[in-house]
Amino acid sequence: MADDVVTMDKIVSLCKRRGFILPSSEIYGGIGSSYDYGHYGVLLKNNVKGQWWRSLLQERDDVVALDSAIIQHPRTWEASGHIGGFTDPLVDCRTCKLRFRADKLEDAHCGKKPSLRPGEGPDCDLTEARNFNLMFQTTVGPVQEEGSVVFLRPETAQGIFLNFKQYLQFSRKKPPFGIAQVGKSFRNEITPGNFIFRMREFEQMEMEFFVPPAEADKWYEFWKQARFDWYVKLGIREDHLRLRAHDADELSHYSTGTSDVEYLYPIGWQELEGIANRGNFDLTQHAEYSRQNLEYVDTASGDRYLPYVIEPAAGADRATLAFLCDAYDEDQIEGETRTVLRLHPQLAPVKAAVLPLVKKDGQPEVAREILALLRERMQVEYDEGGAIGRRYRRQDEIGTPWSITVDHQTLEDRTVTVRDRDSLTQDRVAIDALADELERRLRAPWRSPKLS
Amino acid sequence: MADDVVTMDKIVSLCKRRGFILPSSEIYGGIGSSYDYGHYGVLLKNNVKGQWWRSLLQERDDVVALDSAIIQHPRTWEASGHIGGFTDPLVDCRTCKLRFRADKLEDAHCGKKPSLRPGEGPDCDLTEARNFNLMFQTTVGPVQEEGSVVFLRPETAQGIFLNFKQYLQFSRKKPPFGIAQVGKSFRNEITPGNFIFRMREFEQMEMEFFVPPAEADKWYEFWKQARFDWYVKLGIREDHLRLRAHDADELSHYSTGTSDVEYLYPIGWQELEGIANRGNFDLTQHAEYSRQNLEYVDTASGDRYLPYVIEPAAGADRATLAFLCDAYDEDQIEGETRTVLRLHPQLAPVKAAVLPLVKKDGQPEVAREILALLRERMQVEYDEGGAIGRRYRRQDEIGTPWSITVDHQTLEDRTVTVRDRDSLTQDRVAIDALADELERRLRAPWRSPKLS
Repeated sequence: MADDVVTMDKIVSLCKRRGFILPSSEIYGGIGSSYDYGHYGVLLKNNVKGQWWRSLLQERDDVVALDSAIIQHPRTWEASGHIGGFTDPLVDCRTCKLRFRADKLEDAHCGKKPSLRPGEGPDCDLTEARNFNLMFQTTVGPVQEEGSVVFLRPETAQGIFLNFKQYLQFSRKKPPFGIAQVGKSFRNEITPGNFIFRMREFEQMEMEFFVPPAEADKWYEFWKQARFDWYVKLGIREDHLRLRAHDADELSHYSTGTSDVEYLYPIGWQELEGIANRGNFDLTQHAEYSRQNLEYVDTASGDRYLPYVIEPAAGADRATLAFLCDAYDEDQIEGETRTVLRLHPQLAPVKAAVLPLVKKDGQPEVAREILALLRERMQVEYDEGGAIGRRYRRQDEIGTPWSITVDHQTLEDRTVTVRDRDSLTQDRVAIDALADELERRLRAPWRSPKLS
Repeated sequence: MADDVVTMDKIVSLCKRRGFILPSSEIYGGIGSSYDYGHYGVLLKNNVKGQWWRSLLQERDDVVALDSAIIQHPRTWEASGHIGGFTDPLVDCRTCKLRFRADKLEDAHCGKKPSLRPGEGPDCDLTEARNFNLMFQTTVGPVQEEGSVVFLRPETAQGIFLNFKQYLQFSRKKPPFGIAQVGKSFRNEITPGNFIFRMREFEQMEMEFFVPPAEADKWYEFWKQARFDWYVKLGIREDHLRLRAHDADELSHYSTGTSDVEYLYPIGWQELEGIANRGNFDLTQHAEYSRQNLEYVDTASGDRYLPYVIEPAAGADRATLAFLCDAYDEDQIEGETRTVLRLHPQLAPVKAAVLPLVKKDGQPEVAREILALLRERMQVEYDEGGAIGRRYRRQDEIGTPWSITVDHQTLEDRTVTVRDRDSLTQDRVAIDALADELERRLRAPWRSPKLS
């Protein structure tokens, strides 16, 4: 990314400075690799999730929604293979009490001498490697000890498979159709890191798309392209995205094909989303463990089969990070370096800022009137403090696409200027036409100005 | 509620039949008092949360958003008092292995003879009562055993207090201002129940509003009324809502005043939301435990103080249940009983259904064209199967405010009928004007037709 100005340090710094994303529990010294979303971060991530829902539920006829519980019946994880196989091989150091991935010792640091790796440190006393399950475990309910152990879900997908049969009954859908879900998942990763890229607590946006077995390949190709295009439509530059098919030795045991949408983060190409052809592995497992028939029966043709499943599984945090990185830019205005987030207007936390040029002459009053008018329709901010140039910069830094300025002329003819974050053009628009004009711009197709 | 037709059984039944809310993990026999939101339930609850955010973030200048981690630093819960005091007194039965609340034995059932209460059953062997913490506990991270115990948050509020100081720095707000959060919380309740009213895993909508101490009473009154009004504005009948101040002996130790917004559920008057004056208890505790100064310093006046906090704490699940109960209605149409959800249009899962009167004569094609046009703006459905009356009923049952019917005349003059769910009137509207007309209706003030 030699052609670009963005680094992870700059993103972390901007996120903290402007309150997008903050280290969690910081007043108690933090809790490793855990982050809180601040004001603009919540607005941005809500928009990312909203666009994902929109593309599946609002713009299509064949996808329905689900929000299943985080704590599910423990048999779920026996059937899915997570209890047996969702493990990392770990060694413990009896001296410093740290735990390391046995297959990643070269990347680890001794707890007593961080310049050395485990095994090389003073008094290092490593145990044999043993498999450590990545699921968080807790106990639930009124029954003592036995039978009350449950897990925090490590993925949202299984909640969808558990509900498949009920959806056939009430949703009036039949294959091909999808069930989509957004929600938190938890993995007790030993080596989380890279800001919000890998956290122990993270948010997924997953869909299981159920299809007749003969159509699996077709739909696999369809969703690979559709999910790739979603990122492009929301402003990610195509040369920062690629689809990479897993090699045979990378494939999960249940998958006949998996491709990752990868994004060129400042830390290099990394998985943004995986699209997998899971075959009928999950439904077969849950049918066996629950002793229920999960076949779809086509009443017209008499066909009955276990659908195959195409799964586009995205990370809401990773997507948010990718949108932040791709939007980050610096340019020169009037001899000063400007930091600007060139976010797609639909993703921008704040759509418009309303700014009186001066804090007198009736300008704040008219600005407040415009604020009241716009906030009926969209998220807006009012700012009357300091030089207008500095106020523009503040909005540029959080990615606000339009700044509305009330000036002397406004008091005469009830027009305002609309400054565009990217082109820096200022158009005069009548106050009465302003809300419709901004909504028109919000709905218009958008292309990253970095591409021109 | 003798004047009303709604019962909890009817709500549970409708929710399951139409896929609003389903028992969780049902193919494995369920997991007690845990529910999954199905398609329409997700859309409805997302709208409830969206309206809450809207009322605080979009319509006001003095509230900002937060989304803090579910697993926080464990010191949080020492400071907040949850480790010491968030307990129920419990007894175990050594025979049947069930656990009971010692103070609610009269409501419990013996594990061997459910017609008897614990202590009266055969071989009942109850332990002494001991305090049982309601927080779910788990272990995190790479360090062995000691020091790695963490908790799933039992409330979202504490995440806000932990971030208070950082928000002072970047949010450009000063008291009075609020920090709002929506997210999951977990309580290992011994006696959950009443459908989604009390679950072990639930979703909160909480705000901590920080004020100068002298203004606490004023803001307490303000938020009591504002939160009450929010429910009314979204269509809950005022005679089903009341504000009830806690008696002195009900108050939490930290609170100088708490009022509940109560709703008349089919199970009686129950807490929908609590509004509490928490004083400066939480900031005092976290200042002490973190050894940080959490005072606000007014640079203009030189004043420094720990703000008081007014907390409106709502449950997203309880609110969703209240909206469902209040919307539920039955009436007679053409001699048949109709079930209808008279939801506020802003809350309705689907805003409009597009229905060709017959499945021929070019009607489905025009209907699809209208579908494409409307789904740019809102959540819509297409349905061409079966008699038109039955299709209307289906939409009534999920609360769709408008049904758009394409008929013979449509093919001649490009107008459609817009059927209103509540008044049952049908207006003819030009296709070109339809999207704007529906948006106009969506934005119009709304009043439950049950009130007239």
